[in-house]
Amino acid sequence: MATLTHQTPQTHFLSKLPLRTKPRAISARVKMSLQESAPSLAVVGVTGAVGQEFLSVLTDRDFPYSSVKMLASKRSAGKRVAFDGREYTVEELTAESFDGVDIALFSAGGSISKAFGPLAAERGTIVVDNSSAFRMVDGVPLVIPEVNPEAMRGIKVGSGKGALIANPNCSTIICLMAVTPLHRHAKVKRMVVSTYQAASGAGAAAMEELVQQTREVLAGRPPTCNIFGQQYAFNLFSHNAPITENGYNEEEVKLVKETRKIWNDTEVKVTATCIRVPVMRAHAESVNLQFENPLDENTARELLKRAPGVYIIDDRTSNTFPTPLDVSNKDNVAVGRIRRDVSQDGNYGLDIFVCGDQIRKGAALNAVQIAEMLL
Amino acid sequence: MATLTHQTPQTHFLSKLPLRTKPRAISARVKMSLQESAPSLAVVGVTGAVGQEFLSVLTDRDFPYSSVKMLASKRSAGKRVAFDGREYTVEELTAESFDGVDIALFSAGGSISKAFGPLAAERGTIVVDNSSAFRMVDGVPLVIPEVNPEAMRGIKVGSGKGALIANPNCSTIICLMAVTPLHRHAKVKRMVVSTYQAASGAGAAAMEELVQQTREVLAGRPPTCNIFGQQYAFNLFSHNAPITENGYNEEEVKLVKETRKIWNDTEVKVTATCIRVPVMRAHAESVNLQFENPLDENTARELLKRAPGVYIIDDRTSNTFPTPLDVSNKDNVAVGRIRRDVSQDGNYGLDIFVCGDQIRKGAALNAVQIAEMLL
Repeated sequence: MATLTHQTPQTHFLSKLPLRTKPRAISARVKMSLQESAPSLAVVGVTGAVGQEFLSVLTDRDFPYSSVKMLASKRSAGKRVAFDGREYTVEELTAESFDGVDIALFSAGGSISKAFGPLAAERGTIVVDNSSAFRMVDGVPLVIPEVNPEAMRGIKVGSGKGALIANPNCSTIICLMAVTPLHRHAKVKRMVVSTYQAASGAGAAAMEELVQQTREVLAGRPPTCNIFGQQYAFNLFSHNAPITENGYNEEEVKLVKETRKIWNDTEVKVTATCIRVPVMRAHAESVNLQFENPLDENTARELLKRAPGVYIIDDRTSNTFPTPLDVSNKDNVAVGRIRRDVSQDGNYGLDIFVCGDQIRKGAALNAVQIAEMLL
Repeated sequence: MATLTHQTPQTHFLSKLPLRTKPRAISARVKMSLQESAPSLAVVGVTGAVGQEFLSVLTDRDFPYSSVKMLASKRSAGKRVAFDGREYTVEELTAESFDGVDIALFSAGGSISKAFGPLAAERGTIVVDNSSAFRMVDGVPLVIPEVNPEAMRGIKVGSGKGALIANPNCSTIICLMAVTPLHRHAKVKRMVVSTYQAASGAGAAAMEELVQQTREVLAGRPPTCNIFGQQYAFNLFSHNAPITENGYNEEEVKLVKETRKIWNDTEVKVTATCIRVPVMRAHAESVNLQFENPLDENTARELLKRAPGVYIIDDRTSNTFPTPLDVSNKDNVAVGRIRRDVSQDGNYGLDIFVCGDQIRKGAALNAVQIAEMLL
C-alpha cells in the first residue's frame, strides 16, 4: 500500500493495489524460520488492503513460520501473491483450509469471520480477527498488546486449543495507544473524540476511488461515486457506518464500547463523532480528556515519551504537530497538541491530537503483535 | 469564488481567482439604488477572496448604495473589478479614501485594519472589519446579526458618527449560528469543539495551492508548499495560526474568547482543537455540548428548525448529514448528527455536527448583514 505522498508516484500507487507483485530474495532468516517448530500460518482475505499489509508486517517483523496459506474468496482464488521471497497461489477459503494451521489472521469482513472463525477455532487454530464480528462477545479477548496483553493470558500456540482473539477497531486502537498511558496515571472519567478518518478504513477500492474522484473533479468531470455515494474529493462527511438507534453510527459505538472492554472499565464515559476526510491511509483524532485525578501537561508528556508504540510530535515554536502523512506506513502512533484543557479547572483535563496508520497499527500490525504474543 | 465541485470545471475555478471579470448588465434596482439617500460604500481588500465575496453578497442581497470605492494595497491599485454591472478601478488605500464614505467593509488583514480602521472611523465612516484586530477590544461590538444584534445598538448610518464593528472569526460564527439557539434554551456550560477547516480561511492563494499540490501529488511530483510549508493535498494538519502560551493556537483562542464576548457570558467554558483539512471553502465543526438545563434532542431539533440562518440535514436512515460541499456558496449553516451525548447523564448533553461556508457566512455575508443593520 502506498501513502500518496510526493515520494510515491501515482503510477506506483496504483500498481501496488491490490496485490504485491515483486518477490524478494529469500533471506537466511526465512530459511531458518521455515522449520517445524515455527507455527503454521494462514492469512484470510489476503488480497485486501489489510491482507496485503499482514504480509508486509510479517516480513518486516521476521515473524517465524513453518508454512503459510494464502486464503481468499473463490473470486480471488488462483491469483498469485508474493511473500518473503516466494510466490504463493491464493486458495479458496473453506473450513478444511484450517487443518494444521496454528495461527490465522483474518481480515475479510465480519460475515466471513462469523462463518469461518469458529470453524477454524474448533480445528485448533488461534484466530486473530480484524473484523467486528467477535469484539464484543464475552470471553473473546479484545487486545491492544501495549494496553491489555493480560486479556489473552493462557492462549498459546502449542496448547492444542484453538481460540478467537479480536483486533479492536482502528479508531479505538489509535486513540487508546495515546490515551491509555494517561488513563493509567490519572484515570479517564470522560473522553470526547472527533475523528478525521482516512479512505483506507473503507478498503483499497475506497482509496482508489478517492484518487479517481480527485482527478475527475480537477478535470471538471462528475466524480465516480461507487463506494460512498457522494463526492469525497475536496469534501468530508459523517462516517458511512450505519446509524444505530441512539443516533450514533456504528463506528462511534465501537469507540465507546471497545474502550470499556479493553480498559475493563464499565464506568468510563466516551462520546465520539466519526468523520471521513479525504486522506489516504492514516487516521487523526482530536481527543478531549477529563480525569479523576490531576495530570499536568508536562507529566502527560513524560508518560507519553515512555509509552511503547507512541511518539511525540509537539513543537509549538515551529507549529509542528502530527499529521496523517507523518505516520503513514509507520508502526507508531504520533501524539501532539498536548495541552491543559482551559475549559476545566486545575489539572483535570487535557486536549491531545493523535495520528496513526489505519492499515498498520490500526489493523495489520496490531494483529501480528497479538500473534507474536501467542508464541 | 468557486467550490471545486464537479459542477465547477477547474479552468472556471482558476479563472475566477482572484478577480471577478465578467460585468453583468445594470439592473433596474441598481439604477434606483444609485441615489443620494443610499449609503456610500468602500470595500477594503477588494482583490482578496473575502473582498470578492463582499461584492458578490452586496449584489445578491440588493444592498443599496450611492457609490462604492474599491480599495486595496498599492500593488493591486489600477486593477479592474466588476460589480453590479459596472467596472471599477481599484484605488490605493489611504486615509483620505474614507472621506465621504458611510460604510467600509474591511478584509485586508489585521495590520491594515489597525492602521486604517480608526482613521476611517475618525472621518465618520462605520467600519465593519473582518480581521481580528478589534474583536476583543472593549467597546467594539463583535456581532453575529442572528445572535447578538443588540451589541451594535445606536450605531447607524446618518448619525454622523463613525464606529468600528468587528466581524467574528469564521469558526466562531459557524459554531455559534448552530449553538446559540440551544444555548438560549438550556444554557451551555461547556463546549468542546474540533474543527475541519477549509483552505479558504488562509485566502485565495491557499485554495490555489491546494489545487496545485493535488495535481502535483497525483502526478508523483513534489508538492509546492509556499503557503503552509507542508503537504496539504491528501493530508491535514493543526491550524497554522501561531501557538499561544497555553498551547492553544490563536484560532482556538478566538473560539474561546469570542464566544464569551458574543454571548456576553464570561463563565462559559470552551475548548477547541482547530485542524486544517483539504477542503476548498466550507468549514465543518464537531461540537460537544454540556448544558446547565435539560435539553432533549427533539427539542434541540425544533429549536434549530426555527433558528434563522440555520437548516437541518439529519437523515439517519440514508446516512445524510451536512458536508462542506452542501453549504459551499450558500448563506445558511447546516446542522446534523443531532443526538443525545451518551457520555452525559440524562438530557444535559448533545453532540452536533455543523458546516458553513467560510467565505460567505463565515466572513462576507456576516459583514454585509451587519452593514444592513446600519441602515
